[in-house]
Amino acid sequence: MTLDTRIDWLGVPAASLDTEARRAAQDRQATLTKPPGSLGRLEETAIRLAALQGTPRPALDRVRITIFAGDHGVATEGVSAFPQAVTAEMIKNFARGGAAICVAARALGAELEIINLGTVYDPGPLAGVKDQPLGPGTANLMTEPAMTDHQVALALGAGRHAAERARLECCQLFIGGEMGIANTTAAAALACALLGAPPRDLAGPGTGLDQEGVAHKAAVIQRALDHHAAHLASPLEALRRLGGFEIAALAGAYLACAHMGLPVLVDGFITTVSALVATRLQPQVADWLFFAHTSAEPGHAAVLAALAAHPLLDLGLRLGEGSGAAIALPLLRLACALHNEMATFAEAQVSSRV
Amino acid sequence: MTLDTRIDWLGVPAASLDTEARRAAQDRQATLTKPPGSLGRLEETAIRLAALQGTPRPALDRVRITIFAGDHGVATEGVSAFPQAVTAEMIKNFARGGAAICVAARALGAELEIINLGTVYDPGPLAGVKDQPLGPGTANLMTEPAMTDHQVALALGAGRHAAERARLECCQLFIGGEMGIANTTAAAALACALLGAPPRDLAGPGTGLDQEGVAHKAAVIQRALDHHAAHLASPLEALRRLGGFEIAALAGAYLACAHMGLPVLVDGFITTVSALVATRLQPQVADWLFFAHTSAEPGHAAVLAALAAHPLLDLGLRLGEGSGAAIALPLLRLACALHNEMATFAEAQVSSRV
Repeated sequence: MTLDTRIDWLGVPAASLDTEARRAAQDRQATLTKPPGSLGRLEETAIRLAALQGTPRPALDRVRITIFAGDHGVATEGVSAFPQAVTAEMIKNFARGGAAICVAARALGAELEIINLGTVYDPGPLAGVKDQPLGPGTANLMTEPAMTDHQVALALGAGRHAAERARLECCQLFIGGEMGIANTTAAAALACALLGAPPRDLAGPGTGLDQEGVAHKAAVIQRALDHHAAHLASPLEALRRLGGFEIAALAGAYLACAHMGLPVLVDGFITTVSALVATRLQPQVADWLFFAHTSAEPGHAAVLAALAAHPLLDLGLRLGEGSGAAIALPLLRLACALHNEMATFAEAQVSSRV
Repeated sequence: MTLDTRIDWLGVPAASLDTEARRAAQDRQATLTKPPGSLGRLEETAIRLAALQGTPRPALDRVRITIFAGDHGVATEGVSAFPQAVTAEMIKNFARGGAAICVAARALGAELEIINLGTVYDPGPLAGVKDQPLGPGTANLMTEPAMTDHQVALALGAGRHAAERARLECCQLFIGGEMGIANTTAAAALACALLGAPPRDLAGPGTGLDQEGVAHKAAVIQRALDHHAAHLASPLEALRRLGGFEIAALAGAYLACAHMGLPVLVDGFITTVSALVATRLQPQVADWLFFAHTSAEPGHAAVLAALAAHPLLDLGLRLGEGSGAAIALPLLRLACALHNEMATFAEAQVSSRV
């Protein structure tokens, strides 16, 4: 069975938007007791959510955050400021509730799910962590394909299943997060391949490389691009060769969310590269994506621009784990509350414009 | 009794920051399980709040939002897209819970207080609205001082008392909001006087003037600046002549918050002009101010720049009522939660940098 056959669900069209709900939401916005347009991007957010959720009164009470974790063979090239053991150690930290995304999820009342797709060091069985091991990390993308056909299909499927669980459990928004030492290297390499950009434009400090470290990382990415050059025209093959388990899973999750009609809030650099892959496989996926923030990771802006994305926040965040999306969630929720609960001019007997 | 004597409390120094709490918070940030600096502006927010609240673990559970409302004589010059009756009508809307700030306050669990400082149309007694009438709106600032000595002193005092109530009731953050048809004209005039800027730089559409309307508004402001030119060197006198009841009350509230050591989250254009007045009266007030967002009102950026302020959000908001500050509140709360609740590298047994 070929790779394309195994994952033919990737080509399923995205769900269509509810233009009637959008129009009803637009009409409602015009009647609320405020100068028209004065809630800026919160107005457009509420109207978009109405079109996506198929209701003039959108809501985000139930939100699912799924973190995909996995290791990267390219870590052996010394492209991260942290040792590879940290991937497994952070999975334990997720399980114990001590990581940033755990704190944010608790504060927001969001449901957090952790999926370990394969690490070099085995964190062992952990309460609250689903194990779906695809191998002890990916292969070293600098010199070989990061994933086999089988692995990339399973990783995409793991993302799809996470999206399906969120949908079945009546979540109204999907947030994907990631953990994987060296995954900014994989994401930057993949983005370079998809955008035709040079590594120096998309390689950044990640968890904290110095200038020399960033130059080395860019050189590693260039070697990878040279090595795989003949095979990067297909986004799926580029994902297999340069991506990672969690990067593929996120792309699969975003595709499945769009298929099923579940809105997505995209986090930072790595998740945005997964979103880029998803839109290359199915352009309509873009309709289903909100972008939370512009990361401090310098390559993020270029990937966002390629997606014509205008994130809500710009706070110098660069933590990953889905944390930036979680931090932006209250803005989307307030957009809904204001849209749904404000009085209209008629209800409040407030005079309209002169 | 002279104006300066009546309000000599304005000169009280701001409370000093707790440098020990700041250092402890900085130390804690460095130990949390994330790359150093990766939570960007949320880290600096938590550290600043620690210094202001005098504890290494800051919190924002109790937040007071006080809206000051008042009418403006300059509305007769046709400087607003909405009729003057809307000030009183919106006070009723606040009382009924239908305005944007009411929805946001409910969603955030913040305490909302409404103070009517004087409107042309009397909304009558309303549950939840404190009446402190200083007159049926201000005088027309284009041709006379907006307020008498007595009125500006009482308005500043109304703000001070609101801040004192918030402090006494153990609130951990003060948000001021405003409602007053034509108050962007008063705020722009006052900012022109304090910054020496031409009206065309600071006059904007407010609730929705077209280009011609904005030009007319700038001409009205220029006439006001010409009329009062000999008396604008003192920030207090500029406030009296060009400000408004709610603008003065906000300045008084910010001053009193700084005196007492209560952190403030400043909203949009009008509140930022009040903050500018407050810092001109007592420069240390600036230490106590967080800025929520950059408004779509074009003059806001210049006033923020004069205060060296870098707001958290830029979402095209221009509603007033304190709504932009309320919308930014979850970011400050998440900054506290992440700072207080994340595990340290030692607690989670996560490896630190290579």
